[in-house]
Amino acid sequence: MPTTPDQVRHALEQYIKAWGSKDKELLLSLFAEDGTLEDPVGTPAFRGHAGIGGFWDFAHQGKGRQVTPRLEEIRACGNQGILRFTMEVRIPDKKQGLNLSIIEHAEFDDNGKIRHLRAFWDESSVSAPEGWDLFAPNIEEAYAQ
Amino acid sequence: MPTTPDQVRHALEQYIKAWGSKDKELLLSLFAEDGTLEDPVGTPAFRGHAGIGGFWDFAHQGKGRQVTPRLEEIRACGNQGILRFTMEVRIPDKKQGLNLSIIEHAEFDDNGKIRHLRAFWDESSVSAPEGWDLFAPNIEEAYAQ
Repeated sequence: MPTTPDQVRHALEQYIKAWGSKDKELLLSLFAEDGTLEDPVGTPAFRGHAGIGGFWDFAHQGKGRQVTPRLEEIRACGNQGILRFTMEVRIPDKKQGLNLSIIEHAEFDDNGKIRHLRAFWDESSVSAPEGWDLFAPNIEEAYAQ
Repeated sequence: MPTTPDQVRHALEQYIKAWGSKDKELLLSLFAEDGTLEDPVGTPAFRGHAGIGGFWDFAHQGKGRQVTPRLEEIRACGNQGILRFTMEVRIPDKKQGLNLSIIEHAEFDDNGKIRHLRAFWDESSVSAPEGWDLFAPNIEEAYAQ
């Protein structure tokens, strides 16, 4: 049976929850074993739990870095969904941070797992939190691994 | 060569222009010959220029109906894009109308044409313009054809 809109919505809510609670196991459990993540679309996909787990580890490296997803909207239609959120990164000690506005398109397999997740953002999606300096990570480094 | 983000952005701008200027020919020219449109995702796809043209004709039937797309955002990454807009439908004679908030995911082929366009909206995406009565078209009728 194809995944339903209710299942899509629930899984995308769990995806946000996983980022908010730093729960790598929960995040990986949402993807099919051979699921892919393009983040952003146009860069090589991270493949399978090993690849996506490596991306997760990169996103959580760095000391004193807080990563909080602020959900804006979930849309679920058929076995697919759209997720809009802002990833708020903060390094309180340095008073540095960034807000990254992300829109994702998710396709699910028939087991309720994410088959393809595609993140849409570019340089224009990045902004500094008001009153903070812009934290400028070396994004290219992430994709060179 | 894969379609570039600049080409994706331009084509999605033309897509909005086609709706705004009621230019069916322009709209169809943006799709591959065998392109598909799922509107909304989860309903059977309109296939090829004949199928998508039929959808266009349905959307423009009815006397005195004005259809205006209000662009909110285009994101282009790789050979794909996200389009957010509100379709404003107005029947001034009856003071009826509706605003339909739509998010679309577009995938392009290597010729700069749309291969798949997927529209995300549901009942919760519909609202009445302030001070107007809600225009409630028979959506199911559109997909029964």
